[in-house]
Amino acid sequence: MKKIVIIGGSDAGISAALRIHELAPGTQIRVLLADAYPNFSICGLPFFLSGETPDWRSLAHRTRQDIDGLGIALLENHRVIAIDPARKHVVAVPSAPNADQTPVQEKYDTVIIATGATSRIPNISGLERPNVFLLRWMEDGFRLKNYLDTAKPRSAVIIGSGYIGLEMADALTRRGLQVTLAGHAPTVLKTVDPEFGEAIAETLRTNGVTVVTGVGIQKISQGRDGMRVTGTPKFHIEADMVLVAVGAVPASGLAISVGAQVDQHGAICTNQRMETRVQHVFAAGDCVQTWHRLLQKPVYLPLGTTAHKQGRIAGENALGGSREFTGSLGTQVVKVFDTAIARTGLGAYEAELAGYAPRSTETITWDHKQYYPGAHPLRIRIVGDNKTGRLLGAQIIGHYTGEVAKRIDILSTAIYHSMQIDQLSDLDLSYTPPLSSPWDPVQIAAQAWTSDWHT
Amino acid sequence: MKKIVIIGGSDAGISAALRIHELAPGTQIRVLLADAYPNFSICGLPFFLSGETPDWRSLAHRTRQDIDGLGIALLENHRVIAIDPARKHVVAVPSAPNADQTPVQEKYDTVIIATGATSRIPNISGLERPNVFLLRWMEDGFRLKNYLDTAKPRSAVIIGSGYIGLEMADALTRRGLQVTLAGHAPTVLKTVDPEFGEAIAETLRTNGVTVVTGVGIQKISQGRDGMRVTGTPKFHIEADMVLVAVGAVPASGLAISVGAQVDQHGAICTNQRMETRVQHVFAAGDCVQTWHRLLQKPVYLPLGTTAHKQGRIAGENALGGSREFTGSLGTQVVKVFDTAIARTGLGAYEAELAGYAPRSTETITWDHKQYYPGAHPLRIRIVGDNKTGRLLGAQIIGHYTGEVAKRIDILSTAIYHSMQIDQLSDLDLSYTPPLSSPWDPVQIAAQAWTSDWHT
Repeated sequence: MKKIVIIGGSDAGISAALRIHELAPGTQIRVLLADAYPNFSICGLPFFLSGETPDWRSLAHRTRQDIDGLGIALLENHRVIAIDPARKHVVAVPSAPNADQTPVQEKYDTVIIATGATSRIPNISGLERPNVFLLRWMEDGFRLKNYLDTAKPRSAVIIGSGYIGLEMADALTRRGLQVTLAGHAPTVLKTVDPEFGEAIAETLRTNGVTVVTGVGIQKISQGRDGMRVTGTPKFHIEADMVLVAVGAVPASGLAISVGAQVDQHGAICTNQRMETRVQHVFAAGDCVQTWHRLLQKPVYLPLGTTAHKQGRIAGENALGGSREFTGSLGTQVVKVFDTAIARTGLGAYEAELAGYAPRSTETITWDHKQYYPGAHPLRIRIVGDNKTGRLLGAQIIGHYTGEVAKRIDILSTAIYHSMQIDQLSDLDLSYTPPLSSPWDPVQIAAQAWTSDWHT
Repeated sequence: MKKIVIIGGSDAGISAALRIHELAPGTQIRVLLADAYPNFSICGLPFFLSGETPDWRSLAHRTRQDIDGLGIALLENHRVIAIDPARKHVVAVPSAPNADQTPVQEKYDTVIIATGATSRIPNISGLERPNVFLLRWMEDGFRLKNYLDTAKPRSAVIIGSGYIGLEMADALTRRGLQVTLAGHAPTVLKTVDPEFGEAIAETLRTNGVTVVTGVGIQKISQGRDGMRVTGTPKFHIEADMVLVAVGAVPASGLAISVGAQVDQHGAICTNQRMETRVQHVFAAGDCVQTWHRLLQKPVYLPLGTTAHKQGRIAGENALGGSREFTGSLGTQVVKVFDTAIARTGLGAYEAELAGYAPRSTETITWDHKQYYPGAHPLRIRIVGDNKTGRLLGAQIIGHYTGEVAKRIDILSTAIYHSMQIDQLSDLDLSYTPPLSSPWDPVQIAAQAWTSDWHT
């Protein structure tokens, strides 16, 4: 009976285990995880912290019992410190504080590295001070939650205006904190075009968040009334707490030590079958580089959706399959207060860097027929290649009830199939006045792009 | 300067006019319409009647002024009674009551027939009685609205359990009427699988509607307290009013008279360029048969979305273009109370008739992560071909805030591209806990189908 060891019990690791169990239920599956939270939705931490999700236990995609019930053996609180590819075993040490440090050895036929990522630590002095927080894993969440509940801070500075920064600005505002969001980029959320970054900043401001862009934070020190955050140009503010949310870096040390190749980001290099260059060693999830379907090259783009896909593929191939990861399009959505912002494919700037001849148009239309109550405007940006007319990317911002997320997915599916923008008018999309228009907003936006193309 | 005459001022006709204006603004465009409501959203009538859309004027997709502003010449209240293909002119007579009956003649270089459909009149005696209504055009809506406002009926029987029947059951219930929905089919909404028909019936019942299925209505007579509706097997009920909503038939008389071919439904036959067999005569919308992309043959499937597409294509080709209508997938969504029901492609029964080897699976999953407030279950049915693994159709039922409509559109886009069901797991769909899961529900449903296929 084949034995597969999986290192990491989050999205990629558990997806691999589930796929192996599905395809070959007899396989011996051993998942080693460094913490005690297998298969938790860490994307849900902002909602736990905001109070919208009161019980952290509900963040589990599956319970421990569900996973045990499938015969998948979980070993919690064990950090793998070595893989021996010659003798085909891994060595793990207990990671819980005060635990007996006796190493554990696990034989494998195939091993899947799914060690995820860690918070990027920026070059800011004073990060070790009290009331300075990171947010990536469940324990980060517990630490912050405990602080919020006991210290009852009244103000916060969030450093970083990416997805987590935005969600936490929402979450802490909901809890009654006065929030300042300070980012390095010229607008918030640099994965969307600046016009949309500005719109998101406006949403934040409307909801009481102070938004500061283009600032380089240098220092966190003890101020008179709280933590003092200082940066350039000429930035300083005091707040009770500081959250640092400036991205993620791959946790690839173990993979490097076994001889896997990593790229300039430190992300593990795999082929589209999720194999590293080390025999019988696969890798998947936030620790690996990701094949980009449009760029046709690997990038570092850690996302939960991608981790699930790659884990599933690694699991299938660990059994001898030959499924390929067909690539990410960087599709993402985030809800900030009542606004949803979604993107897929390339922004104009990325498209230009990639050698396309991009042109963007922006269309404002209603999410459904305006005569039916509750209609909200959607802003849709379409990025197309002026040479070929091909759809390269899209972004949508609108009220979160406006099916923003699944509208971007229509466009993502279109990009997956290399559609021409003009061809979008041929799609047979659903319509009823309370939910859309006879031409769906994505088609109206496509027609606006095409209309300028022909003239 | 080319002159194009368009007969009909609803979805297909106005779409043709707009496309002509967009591509060749100098073209002389003349739209003749039988009523006074150009470019009205007749799909919105149930919401006007329910009171959700108080002002009928807001049902206009565009105002008369918008259309005039584009230089599109509208001639309202003129019914075209003849097309002379030899002399290339049409003859219209005023259709307003008491109007001067002097015919009007309009020369054309190309003519587009967009005469739409009329309500199907079932073989029921007593349809001419008072308080019996049809609903298709604006004037039908006004007549019913006037009755509702002045007679203040307390009960209604709706004959027909298709889209309009369902929407009107909702609308009249909202107005406080006691509604009975009586349909001929064994379940309501026969365009979805019986399991979903039953679920919709349950939604109706929960909201106070009496649902009667499998009944053939034969007679409407004057009862003791209202109209008496009688049918088999053993059905009779009295109510203040009766609405007959049993589908549509193509208004193709004019096309027949000019020599266009029609099919067994009376729908005008066109090629995919929307040309009839008569030179310089195009046709589009609810009066024509529709190319079905999966069946690869024409069907009669009158839908607003299709009318818009076909009208746009007819307009382009009337100018000498050669764009083809790439086909309908029968994608539809309807909102009934708080439930949305969507479908695309083939149901299992249709697929079997078409020679496929269909297998259906049903999956119940949450529209977004259950730990975030407001999650509702989605039921998703996937119809696939057991021989090839190809996606043939899908149906979704769930709360209308659950992005049901645009989720069916992801599947419709997948069918457009002849995707394998297994391939759906490769799509890069957007995720944030308030709006989806790392595997979108449509992917979870696809995996359930595939999982049974491999074993």
